[in-house]
Amino acid sequence: MNTFGNLFRLTSFGESHGAGIGGVIDGCPAGIELDLGFIQQELDRRKPGQSKLTTPRKETDEVQFLSGVYEGKTTGTPIGFIVWNQNQHSSDYDNMKSVYRPSHADYTYQTKYGIRDPRGGGRSSARETISRCVAGAIAKLVLKQYQISVQAYTSQVGEIKLENNYKAYDLSLTEQNDVRCPDPEMATAMAERIKQVKGQGDTIGGVITCVIKGVPVGLGEPAFGKLHAALGQAMLTINAAKGFEYGDGFEAGLYQGSEHNDLFYNDNGQISTRTNYSGGIQGGISNGQDIYFRVAFKSVATILQEQQTVNMEGEETILKAKGRHDPCVLPRAVPIVEAMAAMTILDYYLLNQAYQK
Amino acid sequence: MNTFGNLFRLTSFGESHGAGIGGVIDGCPAGIELDLGFIQQELDRRKPGQSKLTTPRKETDEVQFLSGVYEGKTTGTPIGFIVWNQNQHSSDYDNMKSVYRPSHADYTYQTKYGIRDPRGGGRSSARETISRCVAGAIAKLVLKQYQISVQAYTSQVGEIKLENNYKAYDLSLTEQNDVRCPDPEMATAMAERIKQVKGQGDTIGGVITCVIKGVPVGLGEPAFGKLHAALGQAMLTINAAKGFEYGDGFEAGLYQGSEHNDLFYNDNGQISTRTNYSGGIQGGISNGQDIYFRVAFKSVATILQEQQTVNMEGEETILKAKGRHDPCVLPRAVPIVEAMAAMTILDYYLLNQAYQK
Amino acid sequence: MNTFGNLFRLTSFGESHGAGIGGVIDGCPAGIELDLGFIQQELDRRKPGQSKLTTPRKETDEVQFLSGVYEGKTTGTPIGFIVWNQNQHSSDYDNMKSVYRPSHADYTYQTKYGIRDPRGGGRSSARETISRCVAGAIAKLVLKQYQISVQAYTSQVGEIKLENNYKAYDLSLTEQNDVRCPDPEMATAMAERIKQVKGQGDTIGGVITCVIKGVPVGLGEPAFGKLHAALGQAMLTINAAKGFEYGDGFEAGLYQGSEHNDLFYNDNGQISTRTNYSGGIQGGISNGQDIYFRVAFKSVATILQEQQTVNMEGEETILKAKGRHDPCVLPRAVPIVEAMAAMTILDYYLLNQAYQK
Amino acid sequence: MNTFGNLFRLTSFGESHGAGIGGVIDGCPAGIELDLGFIQQELDRRKPGQSKLTTPRKETDEVQFLSGVYEGKTTGTPIGFIVWNQNQHSSDYDNMKSVYRPSHADYTYQTKYGIRDPRGGGRSSARETISRCVAGAIAKLVLKQYQISVQAYTSQVGEIKLENNYKAYDLSLTEQNDVRCPDPEMATAMAERIKQVKGQGDTIGGVITCVIKGVPVGLGEPAFGKLHAALGQAMLTINAAKGFEYGDGFEAGLYQGSEHNDLFYNDNGQISTRTNYSGGIQGGISNGQDIYFRVAFKSVATILQEQQTVNMEGEETILKAKGRHDPCVLPRAVPIVEAMAAMTILDYYLLNQAYQK
Repeated sequence: MNTFGNLFRLTSFGESHGAGIGGVIDGCPAGIELDLGFIQQELDRRKPGQSKLTTPRKETDEVQFLSGVYEGKTTGTPIGFIVWNQNQHSSDYDNMKSVYRPSHADYTYQTKYGIRDPRGGGRSSARETISRCVAGAIAKLVLKQYQISVQAYTSQVGEIKLENNYKAYDLSLTEQNDVRCPDPEMATAMAERIKQVKGQGDTIGGVITCVIKGVPVGLGEPAFGKLHAALGQAMLTINAAKGFEYGDGFEAGLYQGSEHNDLFYNDNGQISTRTNYSGGIQGGISNGQDIYFRVAFKSVATILQEQQTVNMEGEETILKAKGRHDPCVLPRAVPIVEAMAAMTILDYYLLNQAYQK
Repeated sequence: MNTFGNLFRLTSFGESHGAGIGGVIDGCPAGIELDLGFIQQELDRRKPGQSKLTTPRKETDEVQFLSGVYEGKTTGTPIGFIVWNQNQHSSDYDNMKSVYRPSHADYTYQTKYGIRDPRGGGRSSARETISRCVAGAIAKLVLKQYQISVQAYTSQVGEIKLENNYKAYDLSLTEQNDVRCPDPEMATAMAERIKQVKGQGDTIGGVITCVIKGVPVGLGEPAFGKLHAALGQAMLTINAAKGFEYGDGFEAGLYQGSEHNDLFYNDNGQISTRTNYSGGIQGGISNGQDIYFRVAFKSVATILQEQQTVNMEGEETILKAKGRHDPCVLPRAVPIVEAMAAMTILDYYLLNQAYQK
Repeated sequence: MNTFGNLFRLTSFGESHGAGIGGVIDGCPAGIELDLGFIQQELDRRKPGQSKLTTPRKETDEVQFLSGVYEGKTTGTPIGFIVWNQNQHSSDYDNMKSVYRPSHADYTYQTKYGIRDPRGGGRSSARETISRCVAGAIAKLVLKQYQISVQAYTSQVGEIKLENNYKAYDLSLTEQNDVRCPDPEMATAMAERIKQVKGQGDTIGGVITCVIKGVPVGLGEPAFGKLHAALGQAMLTINAAKGFEYGDGFEAGLYQGSEHNDLFYNDNGQISTRTNYSGGIQGGISNGQDIYFRVAFKSVATILQEQQTVNMEGEETILKAKGRHDPCVLPRAVPIVEAMAAMTILDYYLLNQAYQK
Repeated sequence: MNTFGNLFRLTSFGESHGAGIGGVIDGCPAGIELDLGFIQQELDRRKPGQSKLTTPRKETDEVQFLSGVYEGKTTGTPIGFIVWNQNQHSSDYDNMKSVYRPSHADYTYQTKYGIRDPRGGGRSSARETISRCVAGAIAKLVLKQYQISVQAYTSQVGEIKLENNYKAYDLSLTEQNDVRCPDPEMATAMAERIKQVKGQGDTIGGVITCVIKGVPVGLGEPAFGKLHAALGQAMLTINAAKGFEYGDGFEAGLYQGSEHNDLFYNDNGQISTRTNYSGGIQGGISNGQDIYFRVAFKSVATILQEQQTVNMEGEETILKAKGRHDPCVLPRAVPIVEAMAAMTILDYYLLNQAYQK
C-alpha cells in the first residue's frame, strides 16, 4: 500500500540505499505553475545535514521531474519524479545484515516478506518521506490558489513543552531556528536537550503541532472519511509517529460538555464559534475555523550505544550501531507533517468539489 | 465514504430517525458459522438504556440479516443487514430543525449538503455505529478461528484515570460493571462522576484502552497501510473521538531511545521483546506482541442546559435540548472500539494472506 | 467486490430466494428530488412476468428506501434500499441442490466458496440486477439535470439483426413492443423467434445497443479510467454478457485509417466531427458526440430440456430444469444496460467535476 | 487514474517525448527472481523498429529498475522503473501543436485539461504501454510459479481473418513471423496487406486473440469483479482497442441454449466441460478450462495523407502528418494484450488467495 489519497494520489517507491526515492503524483489539477524553487526549498527543510541537530550526512536531495509537466505547468497527467541517492555508506550497515535492530522494522519486514534490503533500513528508512515532501509541496502550490495554508512546528522535545495554544505564538518565527519552534527561548532549550542526548549517543522524541488556515466549510466525507480520521491516518503513516490528536484531543475528556462546547455566534454575518475546542472539524467536516492537531514522535530507534538483541537465527547478541544518525527526528519531521496535511486537505477539497453543482 | 476496509468491507447506511440502521459486509470469508446469539450480545453491549449511566431510551436493536447466509453459515456473498428503528421521539428535535446545536454536525452538514435530516442528528447520530457493531461481531467470529482476541475497557472518565498499563488489570472483570472498567473501585468512582454530571444536565468524556492479543507477525502494509495508521483511522471515525495513540503514544516523546527501545531476546525459541513500548507494531507491521492503544473521547455535545447558538439564518438564539441523552459516551463506546479494531485486524489479516505462498 | 463505481457507488446485496435484493448508494449528490414513480417504472421495465416473452413469474418488485432521503430529496448520505423477495418457488430448485447446471455458476461458486445457496441460483441469479436498476434510475435523475440521456434497445435476437446504425431508428418506439426494439417489423420477427425457442423449451441470445446523448467533452480518466473501458467493465458485469464494443467496434479493423478517421469541422462555432466511428470517445475521453456501444448476450443457460451434467460428487447424471424461466434475456436486459451506463457516466461526470476550478 | 489493479497494482507515468516512461509496481509478491533477460525480451517484442511492418523509429527501450529488488529478487516493496526516452523527433510534431489530429486525443485532452503536451501525442501516445509490458512481464514471472501461461496472437488484419478457434493452431509458431500470427500462410497474407496500406500512407486494424492456460477454478469476484469484466476493462484501456469478447462472444447470440451450453462430465476424476463456449469463465469465476478472448483494434489514426481538421481556434485547416508511424498496431500490441492479461490474472489470483484458509 504505497499509494496515498483518493483523488490526489501519491504512489511512492524507493529504498535508503537503492537508486533513489521517487513517486508518481496522480490526480494533480492541470495548469498549476510548478514552482521548482519552492519545491526544492521544501525538500531542503527535510534534508539531512542542515544543522548540528540533525545527522551529519550530506545529501543534496535534488528532485528530477520525469513527466506530467509541460512548459512549467502541470498537464493533469501523472507527475513522475525521483531524487537520486548518493553519499551512501552502505558498509555502515554490514553488521546489521543479520542482526535485528531493536524497535526497528528489520524483524517484522524479514518475517513478513522473507527477504529485506538491510542497507540503511531499506524501504523502512525515513528517507521514503522524500516523496511525501515533493507531493506535499505541489499540494501546497494548489492550496495556495484557495488561500489555504499549512504550518507545523516543534511543540515538545522530551519534557520541554510549549504550554500554550498555537495562537500564542508568532508562527513566522518557526523557521528561524534549527528546532523549528516558534518560541525562540524554548527553541534554545530544546536544542540544548537534543545536543545533550546526541552527546550520549542517545536520542529523544517529542510532539509536532500543525495548523491549517483558510479551509472552507464542507471538507470531510462521513462516516469513514471524516476529515480528522483522514488527517490522523496520514500522520500515523509517518515514520516514528506514535499518536495523533486534534482540537483539545486527549484533554477533551477532562472537560464537561458545558465547558467544552464551541458556541456559535454571528461574526458580522458569518457564522463562527467563540471557542475552537473542536479543532475546526465537527461531525468529521471542516467548519471554517482553524484546523489544528498534534502528532507524537518517539525517539529515534538507532542509538550509538550497545544494545542486546538477536540475529536472524534467533541467537542473542550485542549490537552497536555505526553511521550518521539523527539524535531527534522532530526538526526534520516538521515539513513532513505539513506535506501529509497538505495532501490530505487537497484530496478532500477535490472530493468535496466533485459533488458541487 | 460510507465504506470501511479493503478486503473485509463494511458499507453502512441509516439515520437516527429513519427506517433503520444497516449495512452490507462484503468480503467476509465463506463458511463461518454465524453465531446470532453472540452478534446480538455485542449489539446489546452498545444499546441505550442498558444501565443508569446511559440514556434511558429503550431500543431493542435486533439485527435482521438479509443475505449472505445459508443454513447458518456465511457463503462469501455480501451480508446485508438492518436494525429497524423504533421508539423515536422525533418531536424532541423540533426545536433543533432550524437551530444549530453547538459542537454538533448540524451546521457542517447543512452547509456541505444544503439539506439535512434534523431528527436525532440524522446521519451524524452515533446510532450509525450499530452497523459497526454488527460487522465487528462477525469479524470477531472470524478472528476467533485464528486465536485473535480484541478487548477494550474504559480507562479514564474525566480526571479519574487508571494509572497502570493494561497488564495490571484482570480484563475479565470489565463487563461486570456499568462503566466497563476492569478496576472495580475505579469503576465505582467513574460511575459516581457520571451520575454527578448527569444530575447537572451535563456530560463528560474520557479514554478507552484496547488490547489485541494473538496477532501473528506480519500484519500491516507499509508505507501508507501501516497497521497503527489503519487502527488510528478506524478509531477516529467513531463519533466523539478526539485522539489516538498506540504503545506508549504521546509519552514516547519523554523517553530517550536507550530507555524506550524494545530489546529482542530469544524466548524459548521464539523471538520476543523484553518490553513492549512499540505496542506490538514495528515499522507498521505487527511483531507478535500484544497490540494496545488508547482512544480519547470528548464529552457528549448534547447537554440539558441553555446554550447560546445561531439558527439557520445566522440569528443568535438560545437552545435548550430536550430528549434522552447519554451523560457519558464511554461505556457504550467500548464495544464500538472493539468492533472497529476487529474489522481492521481481519482486513489486514486477509491482505497479508493474499501474498502468502 | 459488490461495490461499483468511484464517486457514485452502488454496493449491492441479496440472493434470489433470500429475504430480498437491495443495496446502498453512496456518493449521490444532495438535493435531488427522488421521483419514486420514475424509479418504480424503471424497475417495472426489468421485472419478470411483464409480457409473454419473459418468465411467467409474477414479482411486484417494489422498492423500499431505508435512508438517505428527507422530505423527498436526497441528503448526500447513503441511500439504503431493498426489494423484498416473494412468490419464490424454492422447491423448483431441489434437484439442483447437488447437481451443477451446465453453463451456470453452480460449479464455480461451490468450488470457490465451498458453500452456496442453491435456491434460484442464489447470488448468481440475475435477480441481483434489481439493485442496479434502482441505482441506475437515481443516476438518470441526476443526469437529467445535465441534459444527459441514456437509451438502449434490442438490436439483435438470434440471427435477426437490425442492420443500420442507431440513427436510422426512432428510439421513442422502443418501449412500444415487448422486445424493446425500435423497428416494429423487426420487433415482431424477434418476438416470433423468442416464442419459437420458448416452445422448444429452449433459449436464445442477442445484442443490445445503447446510446448516450448530451455528454459534455471531458469525461474519462486516462490511462486506466478510459471512459469506454469503464463502460465495458460495467456492461460485462451484467449476467450473460459476452462482449462489448463501442463506436464501430469489431468492424473497425476492416477499415483503413483514411476511411475511418472522424474529421473535425467547425459546426457553427462548435468543434464537431463529420462522422462518429469513434463512438463519442477519443483517447478515452468523451468528445461531445453521441456515445454508443453494443453488448452481446448469450442465450439463457437454463433450458427445459434434459442435459448431461455431473453432481457435487462428480458423478455424471441427467438434469431437467423445472421452474419458470426466461426464453430470452434481452427484453428485460435493456433497462439494466441503461442503468449501468447511467451510473458509469454519472460517476465519471463527478470525477471530472472534482478537478474543475 | 493511472493505477491499474487491486492487489497487484501498476501506477504508470510518462509522455512520448518527456524524460521517459515508467511506473511503480505495488503489491508484487516477495522473493520472485527478477529475470531481467526475460523482461527485456518482452519489451523488445513491443518496441518500434523491430520489423518492416512497424514504424522505423529505433528505440532501444531498456528498462532501469529503481527500487524493490535486492540481490536479484523482489522484496515485497514497490518496484519503481523507468525506460528513458531517446531518438525523439519532436519537431515532427510542430505542425500539430495547434492542430487537432482526427481520431486522436488532442482535442479531448486540450478541452479536458486546458493544456497538453503535443509532442508525439504526449501522454496519449501508445508509448505509455511500455510500463504495462514491464509490469506484465513481472506478472508472468509470478504466474509461471503457478503454471499459468498467457499467449496472444494476431487473428485478423483488415478482412484477412483466421477462421478457426485457437485450438486449431500451433501457438508456438506465433513469434516466428513479424505479424505474430500462428498460421504462416495467413501471416504472409496479413504482412502483404500491411505493406499495401503502408505504401498508401494509410493504416489498418484487426483483432488479437489471447489464450490463458492453467488458471485454477475460483478466480473472479462477483458481482462487479467478474473475471471477464476485469479482463475486458484491462483490454479496453489499451490504445486503439474498440471491443472485447470472451468465449464465443458476439456469436453467442446466434446459438440456442441447447446448442451452446457447456455440458459437464467427469474427466478421470476431474470435473470438466465437453465444450468451452463459456471461455473458461462461468458466473464471473474461472472454471478451470482455458480462458480465451478477442480484442478489436482500429486502424492507427495517424496517416501520411492530407486530412481536413480544425485548429485550437476552431478554424478549419488541412493536416498532413510527418514522422515515422506504424501502419498497423497489431504486431506490437500482441505483447501488450498479454501483459494486461497477466496482470489481471495475477491480481485476481491474489484476491482469491486472500480468502483461502
